[in-house]
Amino acid sequence: MSRVNFENATCPVPRRDYPQVVLGHGGGGKLSAELVEHLFVPAFRNAALEALGDAAIVPPVAGRLALTTDAYVVRPLFFPGGCIGDLAVNGTVNDLAVSGAEPLYLSASFILEEGFSLADLQRIVDRMAHAAATAGVQIVTGDTKVVERGHGDGCFITTAGVGWVPPGRSLGPEHIRPGDAVILSGSMGNHGIAILSVREGLEFETVTHSDTAALNGLIARMFEVCPDIRVLRDPTRGGLAATLNEFASRAGWGIEIHENQIPVDESVRAACDLLGLDPLLIANEGKVVAIAPAAAAERLVEAMRQHPLGQQAAIIGQVTQQHPTMVVARTAIGASRVILLPIGEQLPRIC
Amino acid sequence: MSRVNFENATCPVPRRDYPQVVLGHGGGGKLSAELVEHLFVPAFRNAALEALGDAAIVPPVAGRLALTTDAYVVRPLFFPGGCIGDLAVNGTVNDLAVSGAEPLYLSASFILEEGFSLADLQRIVDRMAHAAATAGVQIVTGDTKVVERGHGDGCFITTAGVGWVPPGRSLGPEHIRPGDAVILSGSMGNHGIAILSVREGLEFETVTHSDTAALNGLIARMFEVCPDIRVLRDPTRGGLAATLNEFASRAGWGIEIHENQIPVDESVRAACDLLGLDPLLIANEGKVVAIAPAAAAERLVEAMRQHPLGQQAAIIGQVTQQHPTMVVARTAIGASRVILLPIGEQLPRIC
Repeated sequence: MSRVNFENATCPVPRRDYPQVVLGHGGGGKLSAELVEHLFVPAFRNAALEALGDAAIVPPVAGRLALTTDAYVVRPLFFPGGCIGDLAVNGTVNDLAVSGAEPLYLSASFILEEGFSLADLQRIVDRMAHAAATAGVQIVTGDTKVVERGHGDGCFITTAGVGWVPPGRSLGPEHIRPGDAVILSGSMGNHGIAILSVREGLEFETVTHSDTAALNGLIARMFEVCPDIRVLRDPTRGGLAATLNEFASRAGWGIEIHENQIPVDESVRAACDLLGLDPLLIANEGKVVAIAPAAAAERLVEAMRQHPLGQQAAIIGQVTQQHPTMVVARTAIGASRVILLPIGEQLPRIC
Repeated sequence: MSRVNFENATCPVPRRDYPQVVLGHGGGGKLSAELVEHLFVPAFRNAALEALGDAAIVPPVAGRLALTTDAYVVRPLFFPGGCIGDLAVNGTVNDLAVSGAEPLYLSASFILEEGFSLADLQRIVDRMAHAAATAGVQIVTGDTKVVERGHGDGCFITTAGVGWVPPGRSLGPEHIRPGDAVILSGSMGNHGIAILSVREGLEFETVTHSDTAALNGLIARMFEVCPDIRVLRDPTRGGLAATLNEFASRAGWGIEIHENQIPVDESVRAACDLLGLDPLLIANEGKVVAIAPAAAAERLVEAMRQHPLGQQAAIIGQVTQQHPTMVVARTAIGASRVILLPIGEQLPRIC
């Protein structure tokens, strides 16, 4: 099955017209060169990439650098709201953005399984190009390896990112203070439930879409309003529970959240109820958690709500001197429960 | 089978004492955190890594940046002369070095298959740490994902690298001129034959060791002696044949080489004869090809021979106006043959 329009696309497959990846596409010879020339370069087009050196050379960056990397192994490769390509760009952009950096450049490495559809690879690469353009970053260098059938899983992508850190900006759990506000940009659990629904063939009244998105625009706006944000994190694997537990344990303070203030979409809540899952443990790919001084919290939330990715932003709790290193949720009925760091994860291969 | 000495090692496995990788090691929860804390951080130790942010923050770099990435899928993971860990560091360091950059920082992403031995992971990570220290680079950030048994192949590693490009330095095939000398740092084919011998269970009188090594020290010395080197490349996948064909085709000139001046170790030659392979098509992981002005060539080779990684350095040919874009080898008996760009590769998964 292919959704590529071969009529209008420019060189959608390498010149030799293989419909599928063969081992030679990773061999460093003619087939590799054709894949680069006819698939990757037309999609990612920029001067640094087109020089096709062993490394891309980019202009000087005046300031500290932020470096990050993530491997993407999500299954299925395509899901409501996105695909592995969107995730591979947005996830790495977000890791830079939550570190306080402005994302600039990405690298992209592919590990393909022999027999993988080149039309699917084209779709993935096109989504990466689109995501990079939306986030305002360039994919400047890459690599492709091919493994024999049965020794991989279609397509794995690893991206690395380089960003620029503005002078004086310093984020980290060590800056957290009792009384600080815990702020969330939007609803929890959408990405994980989107993946799970496709994978398990679950049918709900409403399809849940992944929230995959690049957060650097929203985060830039947040710094304009509140330059002294203590720490930011995108709650991916392990969900909000993992993020808040990491903050609490590394800061040495407690965190108290109010469950009824955490936005959860109706379709996500229905799926979680049915499957016995906790939305706070489920991965998100387009949300940010911020800890900020209480005095700036209302102003910050107001600004976030003006941004398309922060419309449901809310203050969901505060840092406390009580129960140090622990995260405690107050439930709607006034009870409280300890939110633990998950040991493994509820849903493997969600990113 | 494990060769880790559990008596003397510090925390060779995560605290929960799993002997093998489980899905939770990639889940972003406690098991992931323990892998980072007990395996990766002790091995790679540096300030940027230990901050454990979503991205590593490193000091400003005054000048242009070089960015590169490579995925490593070599089989077997351990072979005479090295392992996937050495390759993953040295290969990325070399991609920076042959671009004229001084390598500074690396990221490392792991895609592990459920059931992979944690003792083997420890060995690989220890070799990466050793290779990074030897090359003078820091591994500042990373990621680990785990895929279900049967959906990966033990261990894949993707590294990305950031380097600094000295002012005025510009390398590329477009700088090549007729009359320039083609210089090689040492013997061809060692890495590919080392891998093939283990994989195929071949027994030769002499074991061939991989030549995996970081070339940045040798290359720095080369620039001291000859600042106007035209282009550099490490002839990995596709071997010397792929490298010289790329130079010739992108420069628009011909390249003539003299086969009897290309160093090939006796054990590599014996294996190639037996298997019907051409050493010029076989991957190397610690060799560099340079094109330099003829006037500087002797001086350059002399300096290279003083370096441990360049003892067999030799001028192996020259750039010519004849047969533009083609690579032609003069054989020992005076005949000539065209060296073609391989279509796929002779040996899959050699890096």
